[in-house]
Amino acid sequence: MILCDVGNSFFHFYKEGRIWKEPVKKRPSISDTIEQLVYISVNEKSEKKLKFYRPDAINIGRFLELDTLYKGLGADRYAACMAIEDGVIIDAGSAITVDIMQKSIHLGGYILPGLNAYQKCFTSISKVLDRDINPNINLSSLPQETGDAVSFGTIKSIILTLESSIKNKKAYFTGGDGKFFSKFFHNAVYDETLVFKGMIKTVQKINKGAQ
Amino acid sequence: MILCDVGNSFFHFYKEGRIWKEPVKKRPSISDTIEQLVYISVNEKSEKKLKFYRPDAINIGRFLELDTLYKGLGADRYAACMAIEDGVIIDAGSAITVDIMQKSIHLGGYILPGLNAYQKCFTSISKVLDRDINPNINLSSLPQETGDAVSFGTIKSIILTLESSIKNKKAYFTGGDGKFFSKFFHNAVYDETLVFKGMIKTVQKINKGAQ
Repeated sequence: MILCDVGNSFFHFYKEGRIWKEPVKKRPSISDTIEQLVYISVNEKSEKKLKFYRPDAINIGRFLELDTLYKGLGADRYAACMAIEDGVIIDAGSAITVDIMQKSIHLGGYILPGLNAYQKCFTSISKVLDRDINPNINLSSLPQETGDAVSFGTIKSIILTLESSIKNKKAYFTGGDGKFFSKFFHNAVYDETLVFKGMIKTVQKINKGAQ
Repeated sequence: MILCDVGNSFFHFYKEGRIWKEPVKKRPSISDTIEQLVYISVNEKSEKKLKFYRPDAINIGRFLELDTLYKGLGADRYAACMAIEDGVIIDAGSAITVDIMQKSIHLGGYILPGLNAYQKCFTSISKVLDRDINPNINLSSLPQETGDAVSFGTIKSIILTLESSIKNKKAYFTGGDGKFFSKFFHNAVYDETLVFKGMIKTVQKINKGAQ
């Protein structure tokens, strides 16, 4: 069985502990396989692409189960939260989603732009601000030029916000920039399989129910 | 004499204590006046528009004087900093610029996207995130839906970042969203004339030199 987390920019695949991603703009490599494919999706357009190549793929989104009051939680956040009983779950991809779990209950969450989105955001304000975000910007001294100033603003504001949520809780990072951000926190782990862990739980539950 | 701070989105005017703004996309109201017009600019395109209608307008940018190591500081930040000896200057417009002054020396600064830019930024990530930023979002309880989640992420990350710079220093807010953000800080004032104060200082200095 292959698992797929359909995102805004990428298809994220999982098979027997191995994970890889492919841009949604390209024909997915699993097009010509017949291995069972189950998926969740946060992007209708990307999902349609997957279904075009693999009409037999099964969306398990409606089987995800989480104790939450949140309305409109993306399937990827849903699945990642299902993998954690206590702690802060940060998925740093196109957007940075932050969710808090306590005793297997989802207390709520919020969203920041992802690193790439910040960069595009500055560019849209003024061409003067069209600079690469330098993730390794020194956060302990004040910037002395524009490129450093936008990098500092971006990274500092994200870190401070995550800090305010994490405090002494355990933090679980996932997503493309998750590894990078996890390094700022001593009580953090990076787990790129977090979403898939929630999906596997769900598949197991479905299979159990079917027996 | 009329002063003009030429921005990315607006012409900001000042005359005898009165200030007003006009979108750069429209023909400025001062087109048909003959009153002396001095300006500073952070946007070449907007500046060209002003000069088209008022070719006699004088750019006083090169006369601004500030003790700083910062390279590429926008003329508006330059002028606002000239108005303050000690404190944090926050100009919350298309972008949010933050600058620190100590004993009339500019120690450096950084940039965050403005409120509108955050909103566009989320929209560019996914249409699911195309929500208005609600500036009055409750920051003390975790969001339970997408609209609140993007508002919370935006406002919380800006406030926390400003807090980390302001601490027990005095904060001077200016710009379109300056009044709103100033309310979060007990040691803050909102002064929409900050940039013009630096410009007036400069004009006085030029006049003095010319005598």
